[in-house]
Amino acid sequence: MINFPTLTEVRKAAERIKPYAHRTPIFTCSSLNQMAQAQLFFKCENFQKVGAFKFRGACNAVLSLSENEARRGVATHSSGNHAAALALAARIRGIEAFIVMPKNAPEVKKAAVAGYGGKIVFCEPTLAAREATLDKVIQETGAVVVHPYNDHRVIAGQGTVALELLEEVPGLEAVMAPVGGGGLLSGTAIVVSELSSLTKVIAAEPEEADDAYRSFREGRLIPAKPSSTIADGLRTSLGDLTFPIIRKHVHDIVTVSEKAIVRAMRHVWERMKIVIEPSAAVTLGALLEKRIDLTGKRIGLILSGGNVDLDRLPWMS
Amino acid sequence: MINFPTLTEVRKAAERIKPYAHRTPIFTCSSLNQMAQAQLFFKCENFQKVGAFKFRGACNAVLSLSENEARRGVATHSSGNHAAALALAARIRGIEAFIVMPKNAPEVKKAAVAGYGGKIVFCEPTLAAREATLDKVIQETGAVVVHPYNDHRVIAGQGTVALELLEEVPGLEAVMAPVGGGGLLSGTAIVVSELSSLTKVIAAEPEEADDAYRSFREGRLIPAKPSSTIADGLRTSLGDLTFPIIRKHVHDIVTVSEKAIVRAMRHVWERMKIVIEPSAAVTLGALLEKRIDLTGKRIGLILSGGNVDLDRLPWMS
Repeated sequence: MINFPTLTEVRKAAERIKPYAHRTPIFTCSSLNQMAQAQLFFKCENFQKVGAFKFRGACNAVLSLSENEARRGVATHSSGNHAAALALAARIRGIEAFIVMPKNAPEVKKAAVAGYGGKIVFCEPTLAAREATLDKVIQETGAVVVHPYNDHRVIAGQGTVALELLEEVPGLEAVMAPVGGGGLLSGTAIVVSELSSLTKVIAAEPEEADDAYRSFREGRLIPAKPSSTIADGLRTSLGDLTFPIIRKHVHDIVTVSEKAIVRAMRHVWERMKIVIEPSAAVTLGALLEKRIDLTGKRIGLILSGGNVDLDRLPWMS
Repeated sequence: MINFPTLTEVRKAAERIKPYAHRTPIFTCSSLNQMAQAQLFFKCENFQKVGAFKFRGACNAVLSLSENEARRGVATHSSGNHAAALALAARIRGIEAFIVMPKNAPEVKKAAVAGYGGKIVFCEPTLAAREATLDKVIQETGAVVVHPYNDHRVIAGQGTVALELLEEVPGLEAVMAPVGGGGLLSGTAIVVSELSSLTKVIAAEPEEADDAYRSFREGRLIPAKPSSTIADGLRTSLGDLTFPIIRKHVHDIVTVSEKAIVRAMRHVWERMKIVIEPSAAVTLGALLEKRIDLTGKRIGLILSGGNVDLDRLPWMS
């Protein structure tokens, strides 16, 4: 039987990361309410350190290490927000972070990780090469691997988003989060099911990377196929820790078209005047595309991050 | 002798608009602090109704009208944020707003005004045609003209931005605002000089539309020449009401290059994850371009608005 992270662990994570993570604001927007025919409360993790909720999990993981573990540093393979998050968390603790990245990763992502003091180890752009390179790094350095989502400490950290949301907005009838690897979603589900059992937890996923949707429907973990969805943070497979949590505590997973993701992202930029990345737009996209009917409800939506390449916006041809 | 709007009028404006205007948040950003070598407090009027501080002035003006005046509606010529602001303010009061716009105005601006229920009257794209058309509208309807900045009620409304800023952030050593027609700047200067006389009020203006800078230096109102500065909200001339207020209460006006405006705008999008328009970026641009030395100081910066055409961003060629 799998041991899930508990609400207590999430509360401990909240205490642990409090001096370093932002308590992000919750925004409302009357014109988006009108469009969605519902009352929307946007938890703005695009304003989080490193521009994404990922900092919470990485920070909790790094601060949870014993002195002995910490001395050896941390390591991961990622070219996304988790890489930057782990690098910053390690810097805060004063330890090293070894980040395995494919050598063809965008310059802007390399620069972000390097800017936070992460040590980048380049590899060929395949999953096999990433894993082999990470193994080598661990052997050489003894660094502790911090997985981007399939990790108790990381899930507990991500759960702090929902903790703040529920504290500030009473009476939510649903909480929506994007799902990629499932770290944010499972942390959210643990918190919401414990603290507000009548609130439904609903995930949204790109139609073009619908492995979580299918896994949830079929009751078995179906790995993600390679996908070029614009929501690049959501291309990963669920993990053997996140999937059972999601099966147990999530009410539904809905999919959303690419077009609806881009449109929702643009609506948020135009109406709310905030910068969110495509992965953050899937929940609103699903609502506006009527993939689920939550008419008239009070809904919390987690805007997961705001890291986009401003030279290549998805609505520009 | 000219009668300036007073702090009391600003306080009354604050009460009047309170049920309708957002009390906008104040953001900080450690990476921008580092870049600017100062402590920056950004007053986010990009989150204001209609996406700009202009709503405050327009709303105060419309709510200040007597029943008799209000019955006839309000009118202005503008193709910018004031047009949308006046249309929304009029709708709130349940009266008509006649907005004279050049027929070649961008579709998105026409749509915004129409969306708020404004009645658009099109004219040829010259100042003479705008004024003649506005005169005609007034003769036909008896509507009350609400000037975008050279108006007591409007200036008092814009002053409420600084009121909130000073209430929330103690010990500011400078407050910076952009200057176009001078409504925001003169409202800010009235409030700051009364409430915090040691705080310097400093304006920033595009180098390519430096009429306020030159007027301030030469002590006489020099009209703006046609300019194609990217900061399209700042192409206007000062008014005979705003200029004397600025002369009396503003400490300095600095100019900023186009390049620095675009760079600062992009920094704000990237680092703070918020959408601001070019006119809102001139103050940070001036700081980062070292047009004024405020090293180590606590500075309030008014981000004036967030209305941009997302299909045509200034850093894209």
